[in-house]
Amino acid sequence: MRLLLIHSDHIEYEAKKKTKFAEDPCNPSDSFDESLVAFCAVEAPDEDGIEDVVTQAVASIEEMSGQTKCRRVMVYPYAHLSSDLSSPDIAVEALKALETSLAEAGFEVKRAPFGWYKSFTVSCKGHPLSELSRTLTPSEDVVKVEKS
Amino acid sequence: MRLLLIHSDHIEYEAKKKTKFAEDPCNPSDSFDESLVAFCAVEAPDEDGIEDVVTQAVASIEEMSGQTKCRRVMVYPYAHLSSDLSSPDIAVEALKALETSLAEAGFEVKRAPFGWYKSFTVSCKGHPLSELSRTLTPSEDVVKVEKS
Ligand SMILES: [Mg+2]
Ligand SMILES: [Mg+2]
Repeated sequence: MRLLLIHSDHIEYEAKKKTKFAEDPCNPSDSFDESLVAFCAVEAPDEDGIEDVVTQAVASIEEMSGQTKCRRVMVYPYAHLSSDLSSPDIAVEALKALETSLAEAGFEVKRAPFGWYKSFTVSCKGHPLSELSRTLTPSEDVVKVEKS
Repeated sequence: MRLLLIHSDHIEYEAKKKTKFAEDPCNPSDSFDESLVAFCAVEAPDEDGIEDVVTQAVASIEEMSGQTKCRRVMVYPYAHLSSDLSSPDIAVEALKALETSLAEAGFEVKRAPFGWYKSFTVSCKGHPLSELSRTLTPSEDVVKVEKS
């Protein structure tokens, strides 16, 4: 998973047009003030350990949350962060799992829909801890167990 | 080079704080309406063929320009698009070369400064041709010539 986290003043989006992989029903438009925006691209290697990668993503978000004292997250699918994407089904599963895990960890969470062309506006605060990116891969132990 | 192009209603930025690689003098704040925002991460392999990669980047921007009829570009350094960055000196050289090449191709161009923490706001239009990403690498011929 490629993860790009932005500490934002504001994020808003509006679903404009479906691709053939569009989630439906979905939340077609939404916004969030003072949130961490988690732009996510679920990648092919993640298919061997979704749960593990989601756990790592939550840890990265907790790290930024600790630095910014921000407990709101907008999970935002962003395929353009990777050139080695997972299947769309797996991506939706991972994004929903991330949403659930963040809520369980006590975050206020929103999730933009997968597979739609969307307009969006995002404002990055610009302080030194307002951007963080990570490439997350399932740990070898998890992959071995799943493949055995 | 990782390149993320966004057809935007609006982009604005403000340089907030220097890193140790900060360009100075620079344009500390600017904005552009109705522009293509070219988020760029210059990568280690680009060091073997900057001119070639810049030519490819201009071609990608021309492609999006042809689809959107937009002739304005904001070149925006965005290290978070890659985990294999070039040296800062090479990155600045490549970004300046991209700015110059785009101007020579008839684009109206602005360039956000390298090496600063910046606040920014970007609005993506959201039509099907409003986002495009590319991983560009120097062609083998160029690399062979430079290494021979
Ligand atoms: Mg605010
Ligand atoms: Mg407009």
